[in-house]
Amino acid sequence: MDFSSKLIEDAVNQIARLPGIGKKTALRLVLHLIKEKEETTLQLTESLARLRSQIRFCTICHNISDTGVCVICQGNKRDRSLLCVVEDARDVMAIENTAQYNGLYHVLGGVISPINGVGPADLHIESLVDRLNHGQSEIKEVILALSPTMEGDTTAFYVNKRIQSVSVKVSVIARGVPIGGDLEYADEITLGRSIMGRTLFN
Amino acid sequence: MDFSSKLIEDAVNQIARLPGIGKKTALRLVLHLIKEKEETTLQLTESLARLRSQIRFCTICHNISDTGVCVICQGNKRDRSLLCVVEDARDVMAIENTAQYNGLYHVLGGVISPINGVGPADLHIESLVDRLNHGQSEIKEVILALSPTMEGDTTAFYVNKRIQSVSVKVSVIARGVPIGGDLEYADEITLGRSIMGRTLFN
Repeated sequence: MDFSSKLIEDAVNQIARLPGIGKKTALRLVLHLIKEKEETTLQLTESLARLRSQIRFCTICHNISDTGVCVICQGNKRDRSLLCVVEDARDVMAIENTAQYNGLYHVLGGVISPINGVGPADLHIESLVDRLNHGQSEIKEVILALSPTMEGDTTAFYVNKRIQSVSVKVSVIARGVPIGGDLEYADEITLGRSIMGRTLFN
Repeated sequence: MDFSSKLIEDAVNQIARLPGIGKKTALRLVLHLIKEKEETTLQLTESLARLRSQIRFCTICHNISDTGVCVICQGNKRDRSLLCVVEDARDVMAIENTAQYNGLYHVLGGVISPINGVGPADLHIESLVDRLNHGQSEIKEVILALSPTMEGDTTAFYVNKRIQSVSVKVSVIARGVPIGGDLEYADEITLGRSIMGRTLFN
């Protein structure tokens, strides 16, 4: 595509580097910014630059945090006997939004994926083991809340193996047919798992 | 949604102001930027800030330009007897990409749309009339290349009326079934127009 302007071309190329955004969408966004007031663009760029330079990660759970230790780890109303192991910060937000969980978290920062060159050493697994082994640890149960994919399962398997020596209960989030979903549209594997993992009707 | 971080929340809100991007997509982009090197974000923000502060519009055709007069208006290989009237810079790019047109352009900067509060005075129509009336104008034909929508048609009608006093030929781009499209999927109006606007088979 010929943009006839080096400025536009640069901006389009930069935006198109973001995941899920192609050159056509990037051009639409760029032309939108040009139409809007200069202030709009400044607010956007400043907010992104500030985010990238000031963002920190909780030294305990590795979740995204504006402070050294995150709000959840600091919270004195949280159940400190429960620890939920998740892939990334988005999962923490998703679980927090359910309002069904009041324990602590541990963010691995990814899942084991040889194809993407991610090994156990790239994840915060060592610090999880340290956290459980720590003298003052009150953790009684570790909940593995990883995606039900091959990578997620591999990671869960590995984490479970690494923490087996610690005397904590290890559980996995339930897998089955999603609420509101129609049985006939559920795939065979999910449906099979939901039968294997059936619970008592109460 | 609770982002547990003011920095993230700010960035998400800023990105979600862009057209076609919701909070979920914005969050995905923000988390992507956090994962990437700080340089990536800096390049993006600098390129956008530079774009918005340095972008200019051609003083003749109102197209986006890095210089006072755009490359097309300056070009000495362009056919100066043809003037194509379009809605915005994106249309110029689209027509340039066809490589079927070698004339000049005039960018209106929008179409007449009472619902969006855009009247004729908000568009570069007056400067089009001036351009055609100018003593040294070599323009012999004005091609109205506006979208085949109600707003586009209204604008074409208005522009045609305004330039009727100037002795130039006024034409409209062909409307009909799109190339590669199946006749049975063409809507009645398009098909009807394509019959009314039939041309000699050669």
